[in-house]
Amino acid sequence: MEVVSQLLQPEPSEGLMSTPLRIAILHGAGYVGGELIRLLLTHPYCTLTAVTSRTFAGQPLWRAHPTLRGQTDLTFVEEAALTLSELDAVLIAAEHGQGARTVQRLLENGYQGLIIDLSADFRFRDAARYPEWFGFDHPAPELLGRFVYGLPEVYAPYAPGTRLLANPGCFATGLALALWPLRHPLRERTVAVTALTGASGSGTRPKATTHFPERDGNVRAYKVLTHQHLPEVQQVVGPYLHIAFVPVSGPWTRGIWGTVHVTLPAGITTRDVSEWYEAAYGEAPFVRLWPDQLPELRYAVHTPFCDLGWVVRHHHLVVGFALDNLLKGAASQAIQNLNLLLGLPQTAGLLPTPAAVDA
Amino acid sequence: MEVVSQLLQPEPSEGLMSTPLRIAILHGAGYVGGELIRLLLTHPYCTLTAVTSRTFAGQPLWRAHPTLRGQTDLTFVEEAALTLSELDAVLIAAEHGQGARTVQRLLENGYQGLIIDLSADFRFRDAARYPEWFGFDHPAPELLGRFVYGLPEVYAPYAPGTRLLANPGCFATGLALALWPLRHPLRERTVAVTALTGASGSGTRPKATTHFPERDGNVRAYKVLTHQHLPEVQQVVGPYLHIAFVPVSGPWTRGIWGTVHVTLPAGITTRDVSEWYEAAYGEAPFVRLWPDQLPELRYAVHTPFCDLGWVVRHHHLVVGFALDNLLKGAASQAIQNLNLLLGLPQTAGLLPTPAAVDA
Amino acid sequence: MEVVSQLLQPEPSEGLMSTPLRIAILHGAGYVGGELIRLLLTHPYCTLTAVTSRTFAGQPLWRAHPTLRGQTDLTFVEEAALTLSELDAVLIAAEHGQGARTVQRLLENGYQGLIIDLSADFRFRDAARYPEWFGFDHPAPELLGRFVYGLPEVYAPYAPGTRLLANPGCFATGLALALWPLRHPLRERTVAVTALTGASGSGTRPKATTHFPERDGNVRAYKVLTHQHLPEVQQVVGPYLHIAFVPVSGPWTRGIWGTVHVTLPAGITTRDVSEWYEAAYGEAPFVRLWPDQLPELRYAVHTPFCDLGWVVRHHHLVVGFALDNLLKGAASQAIQNLNLLLGLPQTAGLLPTPAAVDA
Amino acid sequence: MEVVSQLLQPEPSEGLMSTPLRIAILHGAGYVGGELIRLLLTHPYCTLTAVTSRTFAGQPLWRAHPTLRGQTDLTFVEEAALTLSELDAVLIAAEHGQGARTVQRLLENGYQGLIIDLSADFRFRDAARYPEWFGFDHPAPELLGRFVYGLPEVYAPYAPGTRLLANPGCFATGLALALWPLRHPLRERTVAVTALTGASGSGTRPKATTHFPERDGNVRAYKVLTHQHLPEVQQVVGPYLHIAFVPVSGPWTRGIWGTVHVTLPAGITTRDVSEWYEAAYGEAPFVRLWPDQLPELRYAVHTPFCDLGWVVRHHHLVVGFALDNLLKGAASQAIQNLNLLLGLPQTAGLLPTPAAVDA
Repeated sequence: MEVVSQLLQPEPSEGLMSTPLRIAILHGAGYVGGELIRLLLTHPYCTLTAVTSRTFAGQPLWRAHPTLRGQTDLTFVEEAALTLSELDAVLIAAEHGQGARTVQRLLENGYQGLIIDLSADFRFRDAARYPEWFGFDHPAPELLGRFVYGLPEVYAPYAPGTRLLANPGCFATGLALALWPLRHPLRERTVAVTALTGASGSGTRPKATTHFPERDGNVRAYKVLTHQHLPEVQQVVGPYLHIAFVPVSGPWTRGIWGTVHVTLPAGITTRDVSEWYEAAYGEAPFVRLWPDQLPELRYAVHTPFCDLGWVVRHHHLVVGFALDNLLKGAASQAIQNLNLLLGLPQTAGLLPTPAAVDA
Repeated sequence: MEVVSQLLQPEPSEGLMSTPLRIAILHGAGYVGGELIRLLLTHPYCTLTAVTSRTFAGQPLWRAHPTLRGQTDLTFVEEAALTLSELDAVLIAAEHGQGARTVQRLLENGYQGLIIDLSADFRFRDAARYPEWFGFDHPAPELLGRFVYGLPEVYAPYAPGTRLLANPGCFATGLALALWPLRHPLRERTVAVTALTGASGSGTRPKATTHFPERDGNVRAYKVLTHQHLPEVQQVVGPYLHIAFVPVSGPWTRGIWGTVHVTLPAGITTRDVSEWYEAAYGEAPFVRLWPDQLPELRYAVHTPFCDLGWVVRHHHLVVGFALDNLLKGAASQAIQNLNLLLGLPQTAGLLPTPAAVDA
Repeated sequence: MEVVSQLLQPEPSEGLMSTPLRIAILHGAGYVGGELIRLLLTHPYCTLTAVTSRTFAGQPLWRAHPTLRGQTDLTFVEEAALTLSELDAVLIAAEHGQGARTVQRLLENGYQGLIIDLSADFRFRDAARYPEWFGFDHPAPELLGRFVYGLPEVYAPYAPGTRLLANPGCFATGLALALWPLRHPLRERTVAVTALTGASGSGTRPKATTHFPERDGNVRAYKVLTHQHLPEVQQVVGPYLHIAFVPVSGPWTRGIWGTVHVTLPAGITTRDVSEWYEAAYGEAPFVRLWPDQLPELRYAVHTPFCDLGWVVRHHHLVVGFALDNLLKGAASQAIQNLNLLLGLPQTAGLLPTPAAVDA
Repeated sequence: MEVVSQLLQPEPSEGLMSTPLRIAILHGAGYVGGELIRLLLTHPYCTLTAVTSRTFAGQPLWRAHPTLRGQTDLTFVEEAALTLSELDAVLIAAEHGQGARTVQRLLENGYQGLIIDLSADFRFRDAARYPEWFGFDHPAPELLGRFVYGLPEVYAPYAPGTRLLANPGCFATGLALALWPLRHPLRERTVAVTALTGASGSGTRPKATTHFPERDGNVRAYKVLTHQHLPEVQQVVGPYLHIAFVPVSGPWTRGIWGTVHVTLPAGITTRDVSEWYEAAYGEAPFVRLWPDQLPELRYAVHTPFCDLGWVVRHHHLVVGFALDNLLKGAASQAIQNLNLLLGLPQTAGLLPTPAAVDA
């Protein structure tokens, strides 16, 4: 064996990589922001050029995300310090309500690039949904029609020229992917969903339901049959299915795991169900199918996948879904959307690339 | 204030307490055995006189249950060392299959007292269930008809003279209590159950599914739609409900938490559902009702209660149940049954007694 | 076997139990308050007559402590609603600073019974300690001299007539019990302590360090070498040992576990160390000794014990300690002190009583 | 903004990347194997060409590592199926004892490339250590002298031509890095270490100490003052320090966190200590220094870093260390060593590369 000490840093191949795309993350001090930063630091075609945070402006990224210390020298900046004309895309990881105001500011300031908003603020076409489900009037209803709902497995490829995209909610992603293949074959049926989420879904702000002594070893349902991701899912699967959704807090940090129960019409077999899911997701790189079993949460956590599995017995179908709420439920789905909007390989920066040479 | 230094140990009142009942625990080195010991050590009418274990015979109880060190001087004995004629009751905390053989030995040796078996071995009247659901032929089918199924909220008071009682399974207890009030009003409907259990339900023997790195932060379904507690529940609620049951492993040690979904007939309101549950359990000391909400797991753990709650929206009913798998799902329910069979107050040793004098 | 259906509730034996002692818990809505309530509800000589809480006044105890639902019908009251003359003892489970003001109010209102204060406010004889270690001037320095420091294994029996007692801190209890037997043999040596505590030690108020995503799977030191329990321990073991103390947050809810390292003088063996601990605690019902090993946390949790163990190798001694921060570190130690001050058996309500009759 | 839909996969730049290095992982079905696979799948200069496992031969990698499903199409092979002449390096993730036999086989079969052994089998120069500390005679003592001990921050750069490297143990890595800068300034002193590790350190095989109900919420010391990593650390820091080491199991899956206590000579300040650590690790990309505080475990987990921090008060120094036992304690350190032996940038595949173009 010869030691290849002459090897150097790989240089970008001519042309393509001479201008990596320039990305900024707005409101990047939360958990989703941290994942977006991590993913963009190793993205092969993108450069993270700025991250904003009012609280941490002027401080290194690792003050909010100590894990990143030693991995980047970037510091947080104020939003006003961005040079918008130099950005190809911005990802907004704000809380609900803040997303819309941030988009407004960007557009008012003449920003021309892509916007991927990870808040709930542009997920609905109908402004009336906001007071009903979120308790506030939408600050920018005139923008709702300009946003695309970014569930790639259902809506991609996006129309050429799409600039504004609303990234789906975490529960909504799992639920919509689990239900989408069922909407026609099980039309008019009731699907009964119980789904549990980890504490990182609640954000970085401490509250009673994420207080360790209250969460540890505990299981707690909330917003039973009234969760705000319900209309989001209903918007995807249309009026075909009646969805009863029980969201639940579980004693872990990352990941969503749920079951869907539905009665099958006579004559439907496991094979039929498998065909429905294969037809819907056979080519989708971020949906993994587990026929005849329900997926385990652990295998989806820290990955960009949504795992789907199903079991049929007599006339009953159970579908299971599992995903990382911060990744396929937020950050990696945003990167997947970014890749799609930029014309990059959908998996860039999210999955290993086959080695260039592998005889 | 006068310091009451003259106070002594309370002496038993005349007559009643001069002969506390003598209880033995068989196969008492597991988790359920530990809880039975703990409960009997403070039971006001019972004395724990012996605990058997082949593995630990000759060693103090605290070798298997270090928590108990300093709380009792008992040592484990071999089953053969018991003086059966001196025992008022035995509680058998054996694994499935071992329970039946232990009962056989006791009866063959002329034991005349009560037997409460916590294994699955006498929960079914029909011996055919054992090969189908447990994978072995029942070793003592002739005894099946002599056992009473001990779900007190449904079957108590037990017939006078009842000596042999099969304590229900942990999942079965929660599920049967949740479904029992629905069996008539929702006759012929499908109830869709997803229920999660902690790792102590798997017993003390390490295995892959309880290996910490595999269980921590994980959720995993198993025996989907085919769990052995299903026929047990079906035996309770009869043919009226079609039960689809997904049992799930959760990342905690103690407690079962589940949801039941069912479509309601037109016109049924929350008030109706509340009446069904009130009628069934209004007087039951170990069932706590939480109308218009689902119970939290944490509040049931380390208690002898099964918590039941429900939410109705449109035509959909969700019922939630929560219990400690080692207590209401095993040990405290066995003590409750013991109390009932002995004619003691049902809550003796399980709930605080109102103070004797409280002006 | 004859079913003893004629058995009734045990009646108190004549004289002694005709007047159970009347106890109130002040500021009883926190975690320690919950444990005090639970312990007093089954105390054989005491009746819990009132629990105060400003937040929960007028609501049943189970609003703050849902686990207690079905176990007591008491409701929280305002402190002003107490009839002080009817109380034999009050236990104060207030936050630091509030304890002193509560004691002041009680004494000003002519309260004549026992007071056990679980806050830090009366643990030091020297008022100067408060600004230095707690950041505030003591509100009632004149009372400091009247309080006894209630570490029973060191200071009991208390002087006859003792009415005011300061219950030790949780870390301080474990550390003081571990160090007390070493103070003379290892005089002038440095003892190096690293001790970890669960999240319930931080109280019920959510904060960043108890936010589930931050605590789960994490270990974090705080107040390194400067924790406020340090002077408390130093006050017990005197000037004999130099204590270096690193307190640490661990990812669990209940329990303190720590190690003490110290270099031994030549010639000291395990046997010597065992003798020191046996001499100090051989008769103490709530200290369990584990020679030649360090105790496991799990066995102390949910018990009123402090476990101590030790290992000697060459010239090095490691002592381990484990206790439940809410019990021996707070509530059960308060009951132990209550028993001692009232002249009751020290273990009443905390350990199983040997059965009255056990032939 | 112009959508760059013409972007293609990056092609390797001429010459350098046309022949990625070919790497195999032996015994790759365990936790460390899973991390090695994950890291090599995205390594910019290396191609993972084979992973062996007797148990899983013929099955896809994701059977042992379900997380990897959808990320690689490799299947496990038998060791005998390897074409050794085509491999540039092998990484051995075997259990102790198996590592040596695997190395023997490779060398007997004429393998000429690099070997990085992650077992304990070649960490000591002195064969006598094996019966003493591991309980077995070394199967290949003649090879001990040919291996380099691969703690890069202490021993790199390795001698040109180094082919055989023993990767350090997980506890040993943290402890040696924490102690190395102290060995001269604190010569002859005793350092008292208490360090806790997660359950993944015990490997994939279930056992009593990793049984979830026993590990959850528990802390347990083991091999107190006698752990087999102790001589490994002593070999690094030489005879200068006396190490007392208490290894502890903690209730989490990944990560090691520990404290070192040592008495300082008069006159030593925080600044002095900081200078010692800066001098030792100022340039080390995988050691992060946290002066005046102890590191938090959480920030090191899922990273290739070892975090070191320290606090001085009076004459006492506490040093804290934190690392991911599967990464800097095993897999990422192996890749770091691989990079060093291959003449690659030390951080290749482990840290984000600065973007090629970032105006």
